[in-house]
Amino acid sequence: MLKLHYAPGSVASVVAITLNEVQAEYTRVRVDFANSEQRGAAYLAINPKGRVPALETPLGVLTETAAILDYIAATHPKAGLVPDDPYDAARMRSAMVYLASTMHVNHAHGARAMRWADEPSYWADMKRKMPQNMSENAAYVEEHVMTGPYVLGDAFSLADPYLFVVSTWLAGDGVDIAAFPKLAAFQAAMWERPSVQTALSERILRRD
Amino acid sequence: MLKLHYAPGSVASVVAITLNEVQAEYTRVRVDFANSEQRGAAYLAINPKGRVPALETPLGVLTETAAILDYIAATHPKAGLVPDDPYDAARMRSAMVYLASTMHVNHAHGARAMRWADEPSYWADMKRKMPQNMSENAAYVEEHVMTGPYVLGDAFSLADPYLFVVSTWLAGDGVDIAAFPKLAAFQAAMWERPSVQTALSERILRRD
Repeated sequence: MLKLHYAPGSVASVVAITLNEVQAEYTRVRVDFANSEQRGAAYLAINPKGRVPALETPLGVLTETAAILDYIAATHPKAGLVPDDPYDAARMRSAMVYLASTMHVNHAHGARAMRWADEPSYWADMKRKMPQNMSENAAYVEEHVMTGPYVLGDAFSLADPYLFVVSTWLAGDGVDIAAFPKLAAFQAAMWERPSVQTALSERILRRD
Repeated sequence: MLKLHYAPGSVASVVAITLNEVQAEYTRVRVDFANSEQRGAAYLAINPKGRVPALETPLGVLTETAAILDYIAATHPKAGLVPDDPYDAARMRSAMVYLASTMHVNHAHGARAMRWADEPSYWADMKRKMPQNMSENAAYVEEHVMTGPYVLGDAFSLADPYLFVVSTWLAGDGVDIAAFPKLAAFQAAMWERPSVQTALSERILRRD
């Protein structure tokens, strides 16, 4: 049995959508970020990183979104969420690692600048620069990542739930997705998928 | 034919070591960071991110270290660098994504804080906090990532070249690896591997 620890609207939504795509049964535990539950002893015993997502599996707890997605795909091979061709699979994972290490990191400099600087007066400067970085990242995705209609073209893959959730952060980060037509069309199409609608109705994903 | 674009001592060294592990033939192109070659038109035509590594393959250019490593493993299956078991493979990828999205990012706040703040006076604060973050990350690796002797235990995997190269940055980041015995033993063992010695003799990897 799988158990997903999540916070609404967070990157953990990517895991929920992917679990829905493969029609996996799983239970959900909401981590109450407003009360810093992610830094409490009970949650740290599950995930010492104090972050979400954490996916409890029969063999142990997994963290890091991209790694969890690959695990879901490997344990649900019929869903075909990883391309057989190594180059296409690498393009997919390249998109996922870019989202994890560049775009999500830039997003975090808006609300979580304290991770990287101790002086509160400096956090505002990072927050000011964040929309510029996010806009540049969206442009990179539009030009170099998004084949359309999905990341890899016609084939839906693990990169799509990940890019979709990150794209839902753009409006709040001061970036108008309309400037990026392929990305905007992708986001609109993703909202229609049952996997996304389920995550929305379960209040795992937010539609602000 | 494979062609690796790299800068000495950078995360591109991870790709070089992994190519050596699978005994792949490849050519190397050094990108001259001292003269900002990575931001010149010629290099941006290869990799619009303006970063290394970039691996030219017969089908196109791949970026993002963790994705490139999975590509190398998939195209050299006899080397056995990805565990067959999905949970073990997920543990391996979880380590790789953590290195990419947390530890490398924290490291970058030392020398590349301008990515996240425009005011030069603020960069010093990020640089001050960097050793603390790197030390916490090394402690996390010691306690929760490193099984020993390799990341996954006895089985060498893609996570090992990646963690090794990141571990070589610790001394310059003000972190004494001796405080982390499993990590220190791992680093020492990795220096002995032919794949690492080759990267060192070819001046792809630095030993400061």
